[in-house]
Amino acid sequence: MPKRVVVVGGGFGGLQVVRSLRNTPFALTLIDRTNHHLFQPLLYQVATAALSPADIAVPLRGIVRGYSNIGVLLDEVIGVQLEQRRVHCLRSGALEYDFLVLAPGARHWYFGNDDWERCAPGLKSLADALEIRRRLLHAYEQAAIASEPETTRAWTTFVVVGGGPTGVEVAGALAEIGRHTMAKDYPMLDPRSIRIILIEASSRILPTFPPPLSAKATVALEELGVELRLGQRVIDVECDAITLESGEQIPTRTTIWAAGNRAPAWLRTLGVPLDHMGRVIVERDCSVPGYPEVFVIGDAACYRDERRGELPALAPVALQQGRFVARLLRRDIPLQKRPPFRYRNKGMLATIGRARAVAAFPGGIKLHGVLAWLLWAGVHIAFLIRFRNRAAVMTEWLWYYLTFQPRARLLIETAYTDTPSPNP
Amino acid sequence: MPKRVVVVGGGFGGLQVVRSLRNTPFALTLIDRTNHHLFQPLLYQVATAALSPADIAVPLRGIVRGYSNIGVLLDEVIGVQLEQRRVHCLRSGALEYDFLVLAPGARHWYFGNDDWERCAPGLKSLADALEIRRRLLHAYEQAAIASEPETTRAWTTFVVVGGGPTGVEVAGALAEIGRHTMAKDYPMLDPRSIRIILIEASSRILPTFPPPLSAKATVALEELGVELRLGQRVIDVECDAITLESGEQIPTRTTIWAAGNRAPAWLRTLGVPLDHMGRVIVERDCSVPGYPEVFVIGDAACYRDERRGELPALAPVALQQGRFVARLLRRDIPLQKRPPFRYRNKGMLATIGRARAVAAFPGGIKLHGVLAWLLWAGVHIAFLIRFRNRAAVMTEWLWYYLTFQPRARLLIETAYTDTPSPNP
Repeated sequence: MPKRVVVVGGGFGGLQVVRSLRNTPFALTLIDRTNHHLFQPLLYQVATAALSPADIAVPLRGIVRGYSNIGVLLDEVIGVQLEQRRVHCLRSGALEYDFLVLAPGARHWYFGNDDWERCAPGLKSLADALEIRRRLLHAYEQAAIASEPETTRAWTTFVVVGGGPTGVEVAGALAEIGRHTMAKDYPMLDPRSIRIILIEASSRILPTFPPPLSAKATVALEELGVELRLGQRVIDVECDAITLESGEQIPTRTTIWAAGNRAPAWLRTLGVPLDHMGRVIVERDCSVPGYPEVFVIGDAACYRDERRGELPALAPVALQQGRFVARLLRRDIPLQKRPPFRYRNKGMLATIGRARAVAAFPGGIKLHGVLAWLLWAGVHIAFLIRFRNRAAVMTEWLWYYLTFQPRARLLIETAYTDTPSPNP
Repeated sequence: MPKRVVVVGGGFGGLQVVRSLRNTPFALTLIDRTNHHLFQPLLYQVATAALSPADIAVPLRGIVRGYSNIGVLLDEVIGVQLEQRRVHCLRSGALEYDFLVLAPGARHWYFGNDDWERCAPGLKSLADALEIRRRLLHAYEQAAIASEPETTRAWTTFVVVGGGPTGVEVAGALAEIGRHTMAKDYPMLDPRSIRIILIEASSRILPTFPPPLSAKATVALEELGVELRLGQRVIDVECDAITLESGEQIPTRTTIWAAGNRAPAWLRTLGVPLDHMGRVIVERDCSVPGYPEVFVIGDAACYRDERRGELPALAPVALQQGRFVARLLRRDIPLQKRPPFRYRNKGMLATIGRARAVAAFPGGIKLHGVLAWLLWAGVHIAFLIRFRNRAAVMTEWLWYYLTFQPRARLLIETAYTDTPSPNP
């Protein structure tokens, strides 16, 4: 009987495991809450109306189609019994495994204030991105018909919480779309009333990048008109204002959360030590302490590298861990003989807007400006998993960069609130 | 002071009026419930995962951008006071007009059984199409994990109610995606268990086409595996089964409604005679009886042509009426001197699937098969309002026709049920 490998999560890490084990004697089951692999680094472009969901997502069944040793299950994991070697799913019940790879990623985290989500959605899934896009477009429409100047200002004030790569990318895109697209679509609005505010708790944006690049990114954002609030924490989020530690209250109807992440709560059912972000603290071979047949990779794993410390939550880490784990399984290496996982840092990129980006490479090499942006665009296009998406995204970008008219600025209010339950 | 023209509806008719009156001394306000013009003839392709919303919709503000005599208002009309010359909107209150053009289109209609909508959504807006797409993809996922064969069968049975062009197009697309895409994505399903059933109350599908073309379309649908139920009315719709007049009960989890249409209920506030579909019975110049400054065009108008009888609810009718009304306004023709509107029938087209279509032209000219389909594709591509959409749709079609892998089969469950109210 073939060994059963259950992979939880069809993101960069999980999908890499599945792809590396295609056409092998393993019987693979890929479980995901959605039916698609998402190219998360470009998700902010769906949220800011530059791309359509189909440009950055690919149906999982389409990817693994034709490999008879791979099955896909659309379901949610609710727990794992390590001793019994069982994964429990919400709809399909228990699945038994010989090997288990957990790559569920992370969700945004409000530091315990879960009620903030309603007024400040995060950006992790296509549903999140479409909701942010809906709010963004809705805000401009409301601003256009508001009768009081303060109301208009609150609708045209956009707050982004968190100055990491996602927050910087969102703030830059909001500023660009505000200045170049919305100011022309809404001639009744004073362009100066459109404000984008980026809040970061530490003393500089892009804190994981070298300080000189943070400085370059700061200048680029400010040139786009983004206001920065550094060294400030958000202490309250309401749907019409947010409050900072300093006491400053910012009236806004649109807040986007890019500050905290947390691994899924069901990882607690493993009964093994987790770190402060709910991530599993894994061994040097990415396995769970005491369970050499179970691995955690990607954003849900806390991997402590001897040289580097904790590995960052980046797609390349997940991809490399996926490839590493698949190799261990293929070669059936016992625990004692397993080499440690080694992350090969190929650099970090963040984009700030049209033709602006920063890049940091090993050995202290730094890039910024147009060159970094071309590199960013090239790397992202190259990594889009399927050729068809590459062409689609490139033409969308070309169109947008020529016309400043992103095609996807469609406000689609959901009509069906009372749909049949998915679990009848 | 410039004459104020209020246009209700940014569909084919309303948008044509606005475009024809750009750069004129009129002050135009275009009111729409959505922020986009929708190319409705291709909406079924969004519902069946072949296209993305951005491929067939264009933001209204982007279209009229640069014409200083045109404003856009995202709002819902709730009534008209003809004597006071006022339009009342849900959010922005009352608007005064010198001329009013009503082009609000129609919504689907359940012949009084409004509760059927929950289980059998219609196909009029992008939100409708995305909801149908969600149900379609969800159904296959449920079928894949169902433990009882009857449950699987109910999830893989798709019922389309209404055999007009929309119903035929949806049924054909469902059959194609079922046979070519889903059967490969879901190898655990028996392809023969995938059933598409098209129900039509009259004795033939495409009843507005010449009978020989109905026969051709019937053959084409049957070749695709669609089961037809002709001369049968639906008497009950539940979320797990529908019941026909004959007593037949069809267990299904996915029903799509393409049977009835009705003009918006607020047209009753006009206090003028409406027909059985709630449409305003207009004069020969498309104006409302007794109110020469008010026009109704498109699907919400009942226009009785002396030669042809009632004009059909087709995009070309709305477009030509829009152009006609704009000309009356531009030339400021008094009621007595107005010529009657004349519809120039350029033919009717319906597509049944890849390389299958039927076409009927004036003078009894009929086409079917590949030639009709090429014509259909050419006409639709040509009419897509902006070049960029044309290119995007053509590449999507080419991709699909080469690979049978429609890119937009993304199941996106809405996460935010508790969003802030749009009217705070």
